[in-house]
Amino acid sequence: MIVDVQSKILPGVTHWQSPNFYAYYPSNSSVAGFLGEMLSAAINMVGFSWITSPAATELEMIVLDWLGKLLKLPQEFLSPGNCSGHGGGVIQGTASEAVLVVLLAARDKTLRRVGKSALGKLVVYGSDQTHSALQKACQIGGVHPENCRLLKTDSSTNYALPPEIVSEAISHDISIGLIPFFLCGTVGTTSSATVDPLYSLGKIAKSNDMWFHVDAAYAGSACICPEYRKYLDGVEEADSFNMNAHKWFLTNFDCSTLWVKDRNALIQSLSTNPEFLKNKASQANLVVDYKDWQIPLGRRFRSLKLWMVLRLYGVENLQHYLRNHIELAKYFEECVGQDSRFELCVPTLQVVAPRLFALVCFRLLPPVGDNEVCRSNKLNQVLLEAVNSTGKLFISHTALSGMYTLRFAVGAPLTERRHIAAAWKVLQDEASTLLGTPLQDNGNPS
Amino acid sequence: MIVDVQSKILPGVTHWQSPNFYAYYPSNSSVAGFLGEMLSAAINMVGFSWITSPAATELEMIVLDWLGKLLKLPQEFLSPGNCSGHGGGVIQGTASEAVLVVLLAARDKTLRRVGKSALGKLVVYGSDQTHSALQKACQIGGVHPENCRLLKTDSSTNYALPPEIVSEAISHDISIGLIPFFLCGTVGTTSSATVDPLYSLGKIAKSNDMWFHVDAAYAGSACICPEYRKYLDGVEEADSFNMNAHKWFLTNFDCSTLWVKDRNALIQSLSTNPEFLKNKASQANLVVDYKDWQIPLGRRFRSLKLWMVLRLYGVENLQHYLRNHIELAKYFEECVGQDSRFELCVPTLQVVAPRLFALVCFRLLPPVGDNEVCRSNKLNQVLLEAVNSTGKLFISHTALSGMYTLRFAVGAPLTERRHIAAAWKVLQDEASTLLGTPLQDNGNPS
Repeated sequence: MIVDVQSKILPGVTHWQSPNFYAYYPSNSSVAGFLGEMLSAAINMVGFSWITSPAATELEMIVLDWLGKLLKLPQEFLSPGNCSGHGGGVIQGTASEAVLVVLLAARDKTLRRVGKSALGKLVVYGSDQTHSALQKACQIGGVHPENCRLLKTDSSTNYALPPEIVSEAISHDISIGLIPFFLCGTVGTTSSATVDPLYSLGKIAKSNDMWFHVDAAYAGSACICPEYRKYLDGVEEADSFNMNAHKWFLTNFDCSTLWVKDRNALIQSLSTNPEFLKNKASQANLVVDYKDWQIPLGRRFRSLKLWMVLRLYGVENLQHYLRNHIELAKYFEECVGQDSRFELCVPTLQVVAPRLFALVCFRLLPPVGDNEVCRSNKLNQVLLEAVNSTGKLFISHTALSGMYTLRFAVGAPLTERRHIAAAWKVLQDEASTLLGTPLQDNGNPS
Repeated sequence: MIVDVQSKILPGVTHWQSPNFYAYYPSNSSVAGFLGEMLSAAINMVGFSWITSPAATELEMIVLDWLGKLLKLPQEFLSPGNCSGHGGGVIQGTASEAVLVVLLAARDKTLRRVGKSALGKLVVYGSDQTHSALQKACQIGGVHPENCRLLKTDSSTNYALPPEIVSEAISHDISIGLIPFFLCGTVGTTSSATVDPLYSLGKIAKSNDMWFHVDAAYAGSACICPEYRKYLDGVEEADSFNMNAHKWFLTNFDCSTLWVKDRNALIQSLSTNPEFLKNKASQANLVVDYKDWQIPLGRRFRSLKLWMVLRLYGVENLQHYLRNHIELAKYFEECVGQDSRFELCVPTLQVVAPRLFALVCFRLLPPVGDNEVCRSNKLNQVLLEAVNSTGKLFISHTALSGMYTLRFAVGAPLTERRHIAAAWKVLQDEASTLLGTPLQDNGNPS
């Protein structure tokens, strides 16, 4: 069995825990996260209702309040024990499920107002940088694909969603009889980790009676550091907020933390009440039954691992961990900046707002005089494949303004400066091979 | 930390692994399942696309084919490598997600035919014994609640769905301009583990161009035993089939195995194709990207635990494991049958089709002469609470024909005959206290 794991399974595994993994966004594992998973697997309870394991529900509420406070979320997002509201946190499997459940809550809230036959008129707004999970949530929830507005962004705002574009789109849709109901802003987009202007977007949503969801799946973690908290400014205008502890917060996959201000909206969309699940505590409305906050019925004891991460590492260590990755990304960025064959971040020579967190976007420039986009894109695609084929590191890509762009996301727990240096060396060497311009002894291209 | 786990967490845990847990349906853990979870947590990869960890996708396909063959599913449900079809298996988190994804596939397939504005006309069929997950899937997918037909069953069919009732409902709905599109049959209902007549239901679905889903979440496991395979007869008429390996198959939660005959229907509903996930293997359509078969994007390496269970225990041990629980349930049933204060299975004295698997439904009879349903229901509710309050065992309940019915589901890995005997003793003692009829020395009520 162990032989088969080693000979048949591991060779086909993509090593997300490798210090040389820079693709997508990280998927952190840690001793604390692993211990939490082990304990959860040993208990192996199914905590759909409070009664089916009270500790699971109670711990989840406590830990989500802790993390919410660390992120300085507004009081209304915390459990009512902490304020007079109807808010609370819940662990979802993924950010896709988080955006789906709040979209469904918003959909049904709106349809209760305007009548359920109006589903075909409902409109969702995000940007072309919003995660594809929004589009998928629309598909699932029956929002017509042509009513899913992924508004165009460009380098002039560093790919953030301009509020005035949103306002215009909403006004136009209202004027033709459509019903705007949901707006998604992002803190740390998937392509380039940009940050949408939450405050302005939130105000627009509020004035149009829309649900405003903030997806901080990746960058939310960094916002436990005071110097990065500014990127959450405006979250007080949001109806829901999501951060993936399983990305860059040392908590094993899956642990996507979602907070809402109005738990009843979720519950009205997602609750069922079959006889076989009835019990005194639930019937008396004394407890939280998380089955009504999520898509599945069954759920694992996922708060254990987040609890262990927070308890075993503590805030200062976690802040240090995040800052270290950001420093390493900055180091990589400096390396790229010193090699004139590459350009940074956005595919123009005017870098408007470079790296905010631990993701560096960059491109290999085509030979001087060749401005043909297709060839330039192909060049970067070939470089990506060449680099990944070495097996020495793994990076991924995106497109920004139609330009094939390389992504280098620092965030694996074991990554150190020497790994970044080695990765950059591989990138330089492969670029040299491609361009036919070997590096000189001083490390600059000849 | 360990002190806190012991003093603060464990006292609030409902012990699903206890040999004295008989509530709901079981949630099996095992050494193999636990090892699989550990290995998965150590690798901690996120296998949304084939490229993000080829072994995860490949192993899932292999293991689902193995299990599909064990269940003697029709060839069309297996991966195309095994036949010329478009089928395949996939691990979902829960049966709720399984029925949701196939309902969405069926919804969109139908809407492509009749136009998407017809969503309000789509009708779903199941019985009042179908798991509430069907109703939740309708809520999520935008099927109007009044178009979710949960057809009434009764003791005359042992709570199975009579095909003629389905036919009538479909004909009536068509006659008033509605569009039947989805039928759910169950093998092992949640309330009483009954089995719907799959073959007849499948034929009805087929002749009306509807999707037929079979939910064997609980009882599917038993069908790896030749003597129980008959309960799957007719599955060849189904479009999709679901069994929860995490219930009664020694595989840690979550591992809900779903097979479909037409993977393209799933993919058309659930796929997205953002630039940042594009890769050569996917673009060339050479591989399976399971992200397009499920609600979330990210996914854990769940096939490992099922692989370990199948490899470490093997078919014969698994069959023995299942048969042993069924024998234990039979023993409990005999105990109940020997105590005239109780009645078995269905709340009439004519037991039509008693226990099929390892779930025993039973009731404490009210004192002779008292036929008032409310008091009789209250009596059983009080008994349940009294029994559970002892802390010596945990059972749950359901309602059958409006009668509060106790459920005793054998299936925890550690349960032995002595646990059943002890549980029955507690039930008898609490009944005696309630009825004021202490047991005589010979174990019979006085």
